[in-house]
Amino acid sequence: MDCIFCKIIAGEIPSEFLYRDEKMVIIRDIDPKARLHYLAIPVRHYARIEEGTDRDRADLASILAKIAELAPTLGLANGYRLVVNQGDDAGQTVHHLHIHVMGGQTLDFPDLRRE
Amino acid sequence: MDCIFCKIIAGEIPSEFLYRDEKMVIIRDIDPKARLHYLAIPVRHYARIEEGTDRDRADLASILAKIAELAPTLGLANGYRLVVNQGDDAGQTVHHLHIHVMGGQTLDFPDLRRE
Repeated sequence: MDCIFCKIIAGEIPSEFLYRDEKMVIIRDIDPKARLHYLAIPVRHYARIEEGTDRDRADLASILAKIAELAPTLGLANGYRLVVNQGDDAGQTVHHLHIHVMGGQTLDFPDLRRE
Repeated sequence: MDCIFCKIIAGEIPSEFLYRDEKMVIIRDIDPKARLHYLAIPVRHYARIEEGTDRDRADLASILAKIAELAPTLGLANGYRLVVNQGDDAGQTVHHLHIHVMGGQTLDFPDLRRE
């Protein structure tokens, strides 16, 4: 399995886990786009929502609830943005589903359209 | 109930539904930030993930799966970005949970940190 997130979860690539349970880990994004920028990564490997099983989707709902519960301890008491990039147009670079969790500042919502 | 999304769902504010079922509607964002920019809105009113019930979270998982299934018919076969803004720091303006679904172009992932 040549997946960097699977290697991180397996401990083959050292990484600091801010949270870990049987369904997901939370790490810091190494290329932060906000003052606080975490990645919530399901333990099970699948690239896109439609590739997951019903169980994966139920886990995803639990993961979203857990992120909400953890938000104050992650410095996100004043709100946060969740971003999931799916496929090429969204610039998905690691093909293991992950949720960007961003905050620690007021987040603009920039217009991405081009002239 | 003074919620613009509840009024849209109830038909009190005219709006074009690109998709509708018992759990959610999909409309176009009136202030698009990408060439294609939809809002997927759960029918049930709640503002933030942590305010939803277990049933709401199960529905949210179904909604994410349905968005993935509909993506090709929405012009998003080449990928899309899901964004959920939760609370003040994220600029959540309508306090009825909604999922931005963006695509139709290559989407930058801009750095939102300030000097």
